[in-house]
Amino acid sequence: MTSTDKTSPWHLARRCERMNPSVIREILKLTELPGVRSLAGGLPSAATFPVEEMRDAAAKVLSDTPREALQYAASEGFAPLREWVSAKMTAAGLDAPAERILITNGSQQALDLVGKVMLDAGSTVAVETPTYLGALQAFTPNEPAFAAVPCDGDGPLPEGIAALPPGVRFMYVLPNFQNPTGRVVPAARRDAIVAAAQAAGVPLVEDNPYGDLWYDQAPPQPLAARWPEGTLYIGSFSKVLAPGLRLGYMVCPKPLFAKVLQAKQAADLHTGSFAQRVVHQVVRDGFLDRHVPVIRERYRTQRDAMATALRAHLPAGSEWQAPSGGMFFWVRLPEGCDAMALLPKAVEAGVAYVPGAAFYAHDADVRTLRLSFVTLSPADIEDAVARLGGVLRAHAAAQLAEA
Amino acid sequence: MTSTDKTSPWHLARRCERMNPSVIREILKLTELPGVRSLAGGLPSAATFPVEEMRDAAAKVLSDTPREALQYAASEGFAPLREWVSAKMTAAGLDAPAERILITNGSQQALDLVGKVMLDAGSTVAVETPTYLGALQAFTPNEPAFAAVPCDGDGPLPEGIAALPPGVRFMYVLPNFQNPTGRVVPAARRDAIVAAAQAAGVPLVEDNPYGDLWYDQAPPQPLAARWPEGTLYIGSFSKVLAPGLRLGYMVCPKPLFAKVLQAKQAADLHTGSFAQRVVHQVVRDGFLDRHVPVIRERYRTQRDAMATALRAHLPAGSEWQAPSGGMFFWVRLPEGCDAMALLPKAVEAGVAYVPGAAFYAHDADVRTLRLSFVTLSPADIEDAVARLGGVLRAHAAAQLAEA
Repeated sequence: MTSTDKTSPWHLARRCERMNPSVIREILKLTELPGVRSLAGGLPSAATFPVEEMRDAAAKVLSDTPREALQYAASEGFAPLREWVSAKMTAAGLDAPAERILITNGSQQALDLVGKVMLDAGSTVAVETPTYLGALQAFTPNEPAFAAVPCDGDGPLPEGIAALPPGVRFMYVLPNFQNPTGRVVPAARRDAIVAAAQAAGVPLVEDNPYGDLWYDQAPPQPLAARWPEGTLYIGSFSKVLAPGLRLGYMVCPKPLFAKVLQAKQAADLHTGSFAQRVVHQVVRDGFLDRHVPVIRERYRTQRDAMATALRAHLPAGSEWQAPSGGMFFWVRLPEGCDAMALLPKAVEAGVAYVPGAAFYAHDADVRTLRLSFVTLSPADIEDAVARLGGVLRAHAAAQLAEA
Repeated sequence: MTSTDKTSPWHLARRCERMNPSVIREILKLTELPGVRSLAGGLPSAATFPVEEMRDAAAKVLSDTPREALQYAASEGFAPLREWVSAKMTAAGLDAPAERILITNGSQQALDLVGKVMLDAGSTVAVETPTYLGALQAFTPNEPAFAAVPCDGDGPLPEGIAALPPGVRFMYVLPNFQNPTGRVVPAARRDAIVAAAQAAGVPLVEDNPYGDLWYDQAPPQPLAARWPEGTLYIGSFSKVLAPGLRLGYMVCPKPLFAKVLQAKQAADLHTGSFAQRVVHQVVRDGFLDRHVPVIRERYRTQRDAMATALRAHLPAGSEWQAPSGGMFFWVRLPEGCDAMALLPKAVEAGVAYVPGAAFYAHDADVRTLRLSFVTLSPADIEDAVARLGGVLRAHAAAQLAEA
């Protein structure tokens, strides 16, 4: 129990000591300064938002079913939208009947519910190295211990899963174009991860916000298709439609659905009826089959522009790999660079990024940083990366001068 | 740690043992049977929803600021909506600058965030007797102990607050037309509650979803106006506009805002941008000043119809008081009645209600039940209450026959 100050009657819960402001959100504020080209955000390009379709759908929903769209609704979610998700996920190889699908306020809420239902104070949750910062934040209020599973360019190492301590409640995995690394887990590694997790008795929470955003080839089947009863699957409309509606979903294994639903009821009764109906109206007739390829084409061009710019401008000793999907490049700077320490200089030079340290549960690699390629145009990406290269070269020169 | 079954890899958090399905939501399913007139729901009348205004606002938002409405947004909420809430609450006597207002997914999420930020396992939270079921559900995942403060028809007894054990994290109070009892706390009692809470060092969480729904006279100033630094205030658009948008708000005392905001980020990043902008568009020019009186007029008529019907049909020994606002009558049945046990017979007779037991933290009064008067027309209210009276008289006759 933490008193907020001597005279205040308020006392904060112990968990508050571990809760911190989102580094990314704080950095995003910095990068809104005029003249700063931001590679920091995780924001999809607003140019991809299907505004016309949303406008038509909103009008139709408020004409056809206004009272239902504005009234309290089922905690489970809008039934036709659950059916739509069920069909999509069944086609993706999952065991995903509509009655085990829960519609959430974006996939972030799914992470919150997962933590609530499965984590006690002190229980262990396994994560990738590095992992999605938002997942660390979502799980932290439950005061778990994080076990960081070693990873390589293909994702979590099966031997790292085998070496986990007993009693791990679940392992959180983002196999497709991971935030922050951009890496995709190949099919063989997926099989090995599932085999190791099964042997260790560690169920999986699979997060897949970026799976549809592939630019070279579609990613392999989800982990949930390989181990249905041992994998809870999380999806999102944020990256293929629009994030401002806050719509995500979970496909829950049978033993979990009832408790996840109760946690959802307790958290906010239900996800907005209007938003769910509008999104269902937009997606019901196959719109995403036409729309997602347009997003892919756009982001592929931007990905290629960033790959070219990085090759042109980053100093020797920098490491990265062009991602085959998603929204991010993950860069490791040359020895002697600390991405957090360099950020103010970068912002001064007119470019912003997210230092990688925030994405590590333990033992952060301070040389890493995350660059988003979906917000800026190819020309602005080139310009921003050139500025970043300038900052890094100046830093190297200053180090040499000191030595 | 609770294994879900012998072969499943999933283990549930300890808190799940205390989480249960919402009795009300389960009952609502029952009452959707054809032919059942439901007095059970807490649903505002859909006839009050400003459909035209919502349609115009949605169209305008998606014409004027489509990209902003569909993009990720600030965790704090849409700035102009926070300003609007600030002005409204300042006019109501609160210390409510926009920078301490958080927009939530309905007021239920505000309760979830309050619990997260202030409750540890085993810490005590004080509640009214009876209290809002949704608050019990929102706080329960944090595994607190509930201290039920004795109440009379004017609300919590100050001596009950004085008698609370030390270290109570906060007391949850719903002073205006409480769900479930419909009671309003008079001004003098408000002063006495605040004085007792200050003396005991127990801060207040004041929930006010129904304050604008008064039918005889406006309720007294909020508790938060009487003790600004010791009261966290929660409001909602659900009852004056529409619940399906899931929009509520909190006015946080200074020592709490930063942590509540972090909890919100971790829970779901932010409340839907589109919904917030649509609601702001609807309310910005004083629409509620014209709209709320229309709702009041409608509900007042329904309240009066139910008062008349109860006088006509409930058997001697039943107790209730006509509420001066809100949505509910709270009835205490004659001795020998158990509202939960009688519910199946009532549903058979074509009427549904919510047994009162679910609203008690401890020592439920099984003779109580909650009746909503806002969903049905006056004629249907008369019919439904007549059916309820029939069930109660038949039960009394059966008891007599047994005796």
